[in-house]
Amino acid sequence: MTSGADVAVLGASGFAGALAARLIDRHPFFELEAITSRSDAGRRLDELYPHHRVEMVLDAYDVDELGAIDAAIVAYPHGAAAPVVAELHERGVKVVDLSADFRLRDVATYEANYVEHPHPELIAEAVYGLPERYRDAIARASIVACPGCFPTAAVLALGPLSADHVVIDAKTGVSGAGRAATEKTHFVSVDENIKPYGVGTHRHTPEIEQELGVPVTFVAHLVPIDQGELVTCYVETDDDVRALLEEAYADEPFIEVVDTPPGVRDVRETNFCRIHAWQDGRRAIVFAAIDNLWKGTASQAVQNLNLMFGRPETEGLL
Amino acid sequence: MTSGADVAVLGASGFAGALAARLIDRHPFFELEAITSRSDAGRRLDELYPHHRVEMVLDAYDVDELGAIDAAIVAYPHGAAAPVVAELHERGVKVVDLSADFRLRDVATYEANYVEHPHPELIAEAVYGLPERYRDAIARASIVACPGCFPTAAVLALGPLSADHVVIDAKTGVSGAGRAATEKTHFVSVDENIKPYGVGTHRHTPEIEQELGVPVTFVAHLVPIDQGELVTCYVETDDDVRALLEEAYADEPFIEVVDTPPGVRDVRETNFCRIHAWQDGRRAIVFAAIDNLWKGTASQAVQNLNLMFGRPETEGLL
Amino acid sequence: MTSGADVAVLGASGFAGALAARLIDRHPFFELEAITSRSDAGRRLDELYPHHRVEMVLDAYDVDELGAIDAAIVAYPHGAAAPVVAELHERGVKVVDLSADFRLRDVATYEANYVEHPHPELIAEAVYGLPERYRDAIARASIVACPGCFPTAAVLALGPLSADHVVIDAKTGVSGAGRAATEKTHFVSVDENIKPYGVGTHRHTPEIEQELGVPVTFVAHLVPIDQGELVTCYVETDDDVRALLEEAYADEPFIEVVDTPPGVRDVRETNFCRIHAWQDGRRAIVFAAIDNLWKGTASQAVQNLNLMFGRPETEGLL
Amino acid sequence: MTSGADVAVLGASGFAGALAARLIDRHPFFELEAITSRSDAGRRLDELYPHHRVEMVLDAYDVDELGAIDAAIVAYPHGAAAPVVAELHERGVKVVDLSADFRLRDVATYEANYVEHPHPELIAEAVYGLPERYRDAIARASIVACPGCFPTAAVLALGPLSADHVVIDAKTGVSGAGRAATEKTHFVSVDENIKPYGVGTHRHTPEIEQELGVPVTFVAHLVPIDQGELVTCYVETDDDVRALLEEAYADEPFIEVVDTPPGVRDVRETNFCRIHAWQDGRRAIVFAAIDNLWKGTASQAVQNLNLMFGRPETEGLL
Repeated sequence: MTSGADVAVLGASGFAGALAARLIDRHPFFELEAITSRSDAGRRLDELYPHHRVEMVLDAYDVDELGAIDAAIVAYPHGAAAPVVAELHERGVKVVDLSADFRLRDVATYEANYVEHPHPELIAEAVYGLPERYRDAIARASIVACPGCFPTAAVLALGPLSADHVVIDAKTGVSGAGRAATEKTHFVSVDENIKPYGVGTHRHTPEIEQELGVPVTFVAHLVPIDQGELVTCYVETDDDVRALLEEAYADEPFIEVVDTPPGVRDVRETNFCRIHAWQDGRRAIVFAAIDNLWKGTASQAVQNLNLMFGRPETEGLL
Repeated sequence: MTSGADVAVLGASGFAGALAARLIDRHPFFELEAITSRSDAGRRLDELYPHHRVEMVLDAYDVDELGAIDAAIVAYPHGAAAPVVAELHERGVKVVDLSADFRLRDVATYEANYVEHPHPELIAEAVYGLPERYRDAIARASIVACPGCFPTAAVLALGPLSADHVVIDAKTGVSGAGRAATEKTHFVSVDENIKPYGVGTHRHTPEIEQELGVPVTFVAHLVPIDQGELVTCYVETDDDVRALLEEAYADEPFIEVVDTPPGVRDVRETNFCRIHAWQDGRRAIVFAAIDNLWKGTASQAVQNLNLMFGRPETEGLL
Repeated sequence: MTSGADVAVLGASGFAGALAARLIDRHPFFELEAITSRSDAGRRLDELYPHHRVEMVLDAYDVDELGAIDAAIVAYPHGAAAPVVAELHERGVKVVDLSADFRLRDVATYEANYVEHPHPELIAEAVYGLPERYRDAIARASIVACPGCFPTAAVLALGPLSADHVVIDAKTGVSGAGRAATEKTHFVSVDENIKPYGVGTHRHTPEIEQELGVPVTFVAHLVPIDQGELVTCYVETDDDVRALLEEAYADEPFIEVVDTPPGVRDVRETNFCRIHAWQDGRRAIVFAAIDNLWKGTASQAVQNLNLMFGRPETEGLL
Repeated sequence: MTSGADVAVLGASGFAGALAARLIDRHPFFELEAITSRSDAGRRLDELYPHHRVEMVLDAYDVDELGAIDAAIVAYPHGAAAPVVAELHERGVKVVDLSADFRLRDVATYEANYVEHPHPELIAEAVYGLPERYRDAIARASIVACPGCFPTAAVLALGPLSADHVVIDAKTGVSGAGRAATEKTHFVSVDENIKPYGVGTHRHTPEIEQELGVPVTFVAHLVPIDQGELVTCYVETDDDVRALLEEAYADEPFIEVVDTPPGVRDVRETNFCRIHAWQDGRRAIVFAAIDNLWKGTASQAVQNLNLMFGRPETEGLL
């Protein structure tokens, strides 16, 4: 293949969209054709994010002016993404959607946790974009629903096991809360703090349960770092956890099963997920560390795009 | 006097006002009579600031409902403070104003840097609230204009000297930027960053120049801490800097002239200012570290109140 | 009693000992009579910890030169504490020991987790120093074993319940790792990191199990803050958790059962423990936030001393 | 050229050496042939620095076992580097030295600030490795002395100007203090702190003065970030500062002259230096932000290597 594929990133002024734009901009195969933003149209992306060094102007979104793109990464809020995904899908554009709109296969579960679904008819078209589980389907998909950051880590940690009494204690950096300036994201609120949130109501719970097939108790905690996420998963199981994980991930380019508990610095600004298991009889603890903006969102989107276009899965990501 | 004095803190939902409320609440002499807030009336202060543990409800400000208070600390934005100060002054209430409204003795300078002055006739009534310079006048004052945080540190560092070619490089924590959630105060903007701001235009410059009587070049930098402020002052002088500082502050309860450069941790959550001088011929460097919310704002307000009511200057502050 | 009691702090150059020295130094009843350090004898404590402002010289420890003290806080490493405690006990000095040496009632459990016990005969003399559980016994004790920081939070969270399948996920600041400069405490190792440690082997586990009477799965995580600790406790129970906690702690001066999940900033530099419970049928999650150096160590030591000397329990701690 | 050049990194277990190893490991032209360490020989580099993902074992240094290398990056402490540089130079290996051993052209100045120089005869061979000033000489050099991190930023900021009364106020992250675990690098010492160091004695001062040709007053400050460095340079000058900077750096691939004061996040993990100038008559302030481990050390070493081997200057660095 000679000329690559043209990609637009919609919603590129947010943390995840901006990183996706940078990864596409430097990708050997994909061309960054357009970036859009509702709030910052007219500004250059490197004004907002100098360190990404993407010297392109943000446009207001207009599907008719996007030009001839082959694919899009959609970084819109939940509910706002689906109509755009539908519009692009109709035009034959392959889509990786970062929102939750097409992650849950059950409409009722989606609507109980989010909003009325704008395009339930497309749910069946979408593939859950965790390459380590759905690689082949992703390669054939026209819509890929990129997993949430916590489900990415939790499902990679526990997916290979049969377990029950599942408790998932997650800790994450502040970029996961998005670019909006709120009391919650104010430096003085976060600094020197450790704070649980979304207790009993976090919308990533049904997503994890869908993939694991068992009920889980899930709590997220905000800690004073910008990027990075650790899930500590406590389960009861009859499996040999370490052996199952090593077998499952033996050939995975981005999954590292390691001998000691990982820190999130180990995977900072990478697409890697580092996993460690401890076991004592039926009790097991599985740790998984990712960068919430990379493997948890934007670089996983590019990993999915690579698959969708028949590229080497690691292209542009090492 | 037997039964103490009743104090209100107006604008107690901001960082400085809330700390002032806590300090008054625990003060052996003063009674916290009322706290007000425009944005958070009806909420308890310990909802907003659990660690201060002030179990009092914020009221909307109404001078007629404040009750019989003897003094007020006004923590309003610049321009909004003066009318309230005037109203209280007229009723015979002693006021410590945390805003810039009465710091600058020259109305034109104030108006060039801030807004049209709502009550220029009261400027002459106000005393600049740096106890180490104006102790006696403060004791007799009915309006005290609490210095800005940078002027507090810079004037304490350089006030005793005759110097020229004055450069003041300040570094401060994020609480100095206030409670408003903005892009500037978002955790992800501040974390792992060092960033200059207000270059050439910072409104604390004329305040410092008023007190020092010489032109200064001043730049502030934001660093990822919540509280704390260091000024590094580069000057040329014929003085023996160390000797002058030690003499000036020999009897000061809150000024520590020390042998090594101070870190801001040394004075965290205290009313102390720690000063160190280095000199090589005419070149001298004077460092001063304070907590910007304490000596830089709220605890200095209480130090002033102590003087205004004839109390021991350190009462409630050690 | 008129003139107070004289207290020594042994091992005052560490984080916990230094804070204990400061709290005693400012205490209305206790007099700080001596501070000792093996590594820093001859230095003033405020050289090491300027912000504590304790202007006293550290001595090498010599029980015969301690003078006539009424009580001691011993902040020695595990194994090194017991001989000193024994020596002081023999002389009739009341002791609060911050080490693990007298926390575990079962010698074999102690020796399996620590070292050979130097003074097993004194274990029966010692009372576990969690005032909310053993207030009366502490008041009569001559040796109090101050709990570990994690057990303090975990036992306060779960003590009032009957629960099983207990998982305790703890997050703590770096001061808990002590003053030793190691790769683990290097700023660059901690900053922007979240890292589990002591997985499956943490020595606070048997201490928690002793108090709760059930097996627990416990993991600690290091996060980039200096002070503060949160335990997230996942249990299965038939109890009405919230009701039990409120009943248990209705009259406790330092325990706050609150409506929303606490952050560790809420209790920073205080002796408070803030607890919140969430429940859905048999599944319950109990959060407890403390300052690991305060309620987790040094201020709890003073709370114990207050009890041992018949003082108001909150004296010097509000 | 077809087959690239073989490079060894000596002293690869330190922060700078490890990053240099990673950059060479991923470089399109250079091959990482060997990495050495005195303290960690036998360990894999990705054990020490997982996030660099260099899967190579550290050897003890033995010049006879290094194999046929074309170049070496030497990341040894001052004084220890020169003998190794001499040994490699004698064997015809091109060397980029990260230490101060060959930066100062005047032996006496070196010896007054460091130690007795082990190989003064080689000083004349060495070129000061700031490509933006000495590009042509570097291309012909066999020994390149990589500048200190502060001199890199300060000389890039002020080199194009004629100025006097030069004050350089630098702020840096903790990685600049190296990997050694000390009280200074302990998380609790750094966190929530801002602290000056090396006042009046910092050894980067003569290096800056050598390049600028005027006396400078220089102070460094440690702030709680891991990587990043900002110099705020206060000068008096008759030049049009902005115009001179823009002219000097118009064609530089790594120097960005920008409209607003830079934050260090803007250049994090890059070889860029971002510069901004403010001027009011003769008073000017020039800001320069770099990543102290990248442009300040390791990536600048690679930039120099690129020049020495006739490669595109940006190869492996964008």
